[in-house]
Amino acid sequence: MAENKLPLEVAAGNGLMDRRFFMKAGALGSAALLSATANALQREEWMKLPGAGMSDNGAPSPHESYVKRLDVSSQPGTTGTGVSRSPLQFLDGIITPSRLHFERHHSGIPDIDPEQHRLVIHGLVDRPLSFSLDDLDRYPSVSRIQFLECSGNSGAGIAPEPVQGTCSSLHGLVAASEWGGVPLSILLDEAGVKPEGKWIIADGADAAMMSRSVPMEKVLDDAIVALYQNGERLRPSNGYPMRLFLPGWEGNTCVKWLRTVVVTDQPAMTKDETSKYSDLNDDGEARLFTFPMGVKSVITSPSPGLVMGKKGVYQVSGIAWTGAGKIRRVEVSADGGKSWADAALDEHVLPKCLTRFRSAWNWDGGSAVLMSRATDEAGAVQPTRTAVLRGRASNSFYHYNGIQAWQVSETGEVNNVYA
Amino acid sequence: MAENKLPLEVAAGNGLMDRRFFMKAGALGSAALLSATANALQREEWMKLPGAGMSDNGAPSPHESYVKRLDVSSQPGTTGTGVSRSPLQFLDGIITPSRLHFERHHSGIPDIDPEQHRLVIHGLVDRPLSFSLDDLDRYPSVSRIQFLECSGNSGAGIAPEPVQGTCSSLHGLVAASEWGGVPLSILLDEAGVKPEGKWIIADGADAAMMSRSVPMEKVLDDAIVALYQNGERLRPSNGYPMRLFLPGWEGNTCVKWLRTVVVTDQPAMTKDETSKYSDLNDDGEARLFTFPMGVKSVITSPSPGLVMGKKGVYQVSGIAWTGAGKIRRVEVSADGGKSWADAALDEHVLPKCLTRFRSAWNWDGGSAVLMSRATDEAGAVQPTRTAVLRGRASNSFYHYNGIQAWQVSETGEVNNVYA
Repeated sequence: MAENKLPLEVAAGNGLMDRRFFMKAGALGSAALLSATANALQREEWMKLPGAGMSDNGAPSPHESYVKRLDVSSQPGTTGTGVSRSPLQFLDGIITPSRLHFERHHSGIPDIDPEQHRLVIHGLVDRPLSFSLDDLDRYPSVSRIQFLECSGNSGAGIAPEPVQGTCSSLHGLVAASEWGGVPLSILLDEAGVKPEGKWIIADGADAAMMSRSVPMEKVLDDAIVALYQNGERLRPSNGYPMRLFLPGWEGNTCVKWLRTVVVTDQPAMTKDETSKYSDLNDDGEARLFTFPMGVKSVITSPSPGLVMGKKGVYQVSGIAWTGAGKIRRVEVSADGGKSWADAALDEHVLPKCLTRFRSAWNWDGGSAVLMSRATDEAGAVQPTRTAVLRGRASNSFYHYNGIQAWQVSETGEVNNVYA
Repeated sequence: MAENKLPLEVAAGNGLMDRRFFMKAGALGSAALLSATANALQREEWMKLPGAGMSDNGAPSPHESYVKRLDVSSQPGTTGTGVSRSPLQFLDGIITPSRLHFERHHSGIPDIDPEQHRLVIHGLVDRPLSFSLDDLDRYPSVSRIQFLECSGNSGAGIAPEPVQGTCSSLHGLVAASEWGGVPLSILLDEAGVKPEGKWIIADGADAAMMSRSVPMEKVLDDAIVALYQNGERLRPSNGYPMRLFLPGWEGNTCVKWLRTVVVTDQPAMTKDETSKYSDLNDDGEARLFTFPMGVKSVITSPSPGLVMGKKGVYQVSGIAWTGAGKIRRVEVSADGGKSWADAALDEHVLPKCLTRFRSAWNWDGGSAVLMSRATDEAGAVQPTRTAVLRGRASNSFYHYNGIQAWQVSETGEVNNVYA
């Protein structure tokens, strides 16, 4: 029904429609005529008695219990060294609920008493200082909605054959939150950085004492000591009571449970920036301090595990992000990259944040390969898998941002493919 | 220490500093010199053993258990007719975590099976339609971060003497979320609105069958059938599996558990727009359909229940919002409105959303009266209490948006005052 209203503004091969489809009424013909559902206006059981009362701590519907952090895994012999992933295929918009924010811990989540915890700033400063949480609450603060991504996210893309998994298991180490706290530049100014202070070393209060070196230029640009996430205090799994947050930079530099900031004249070459979180080239050289996350996108729906129904118009939806600032453009292909159509971007295109994109796709019921390709405001275009791997050692999986291809089969199943 | 660095850019009486204080380093002198905390670098207990492992559903720190929905109350004889409030005094930024989003139910929370629930559009349309949740997922969607406020929020302001309560109990019926879903205009276009269709009647699937009339102009402007809140599916207390969302309009019109949309040529004059949610003037006339929420602001910190410590520089922080679009300006006074200083606004000033403002206040330890006053992009200025009440009946408490004054005593306690 109403199929005559379907705009025929095809924008790319295999059924991708122009993004203007999103800006005006578009009849999909997927609703049922009311005559076919004669009982749709009968009172359901839940309308016949008063419902449940108010609660002091709201929870999702029991019908949504499958929407949780997924692919939780620890390294053998450990309990708190590993990851859990955000269930991207079940989310929409750009905010990640804090309960679903991915985790990456190197020795579990410390049980920190906020009354005892201190942030200590020392090293090449005039006045070494110690800050309690109450102290920090008095300082001028900022809040911004920004993404956080583990540099190992999407690393399965280096495998010679496509790893079969869900959007979560392949790409779920990224999330976006509102991060609020005190600019680290303000605290450093109070301590008085000596002229030779060019780096900071940030250490966490976890048992692994996560430790990263950060150039002073980034610190003075937009680094904050984050105290709030999505309006409430940080949660323990994200650094309670305070973490370093470096917008657009790899997640491990955003040191959780931040405990000390040492001002130095050079990087410390800690274990976390030599044995890990450096990128090996195929000539044996390692690139160090590859901080910013590259331009990237992934289609979250449809994606593996979500099964397409009858043929017809579907919303293709996903997220794009870049450490360089704002996303300028996302293109979608339904024919494996032979042709591309511009996707519509949701209203909020924020710097260093997830951006939600959507395309309307008229699926003809045949096999198809869906891809998305992001371009950021610096002009960087998301590379192909081949381009990402060029010059890399075969086990170099950090900072993988290649174009993701999903194959939709005639039965509506979705699989990871290299295309 | 470091007090010599405190900028003396006083912007208004009683210690309010210029907002540029927020844009550059501002030394507060509230940190401890490291020498005074010699054990600050000793390893705490929680660094000596691995911490807790990953979890599939993250939770706040046990140290933050007091941060919950507050002032939960039901009308006598009911279990699900009442409110719970967002704990504004403990939140920062602009996003409200979904677990803390205020509630206002008229007959409790229905336990809806999303597989059975249908949205039915009928009335003055060419094709009455019925939509399942799966149907709606295929339609072009949008997401936006916007506030939702109960029209009864802050209604205690009409009391002859200031009601003593917290920021939550006085103003906690407002929250901001990312709302995602399908523009209602798209669904109506598919149904085909007849030329005489000028209103819709939206009914909820709760036992009270919340029912409101909405002019077609608003529906076609920015109304959505919301399916997602803060990235995940709506929670039951906020309308699972779908609700109407009318940006900037009073919360009760954003009908939860949306079940039917009837297109009509006139409003229905339902119980929810005659016996409730209309505004009585002092001449006995009632104003109906007072949909948009007015320009408003409140200082969330300091506020009643939060006790100030030693004198010195504090961050004064709060939220401002308007149904008219963006907040243009927030001013803060520390001398009961005799003088005002512009507050700094956080980076994201989004339309029909909470905007976070902050001022630096050098508290001299004496009694002071803090106030905030918002101006929106339409030029509307938040009125005084006297101006709000002019012409109103004495029991007319909806749409109260008067300037809130908090008195800080010499002991650092904060109270609600009329000033």
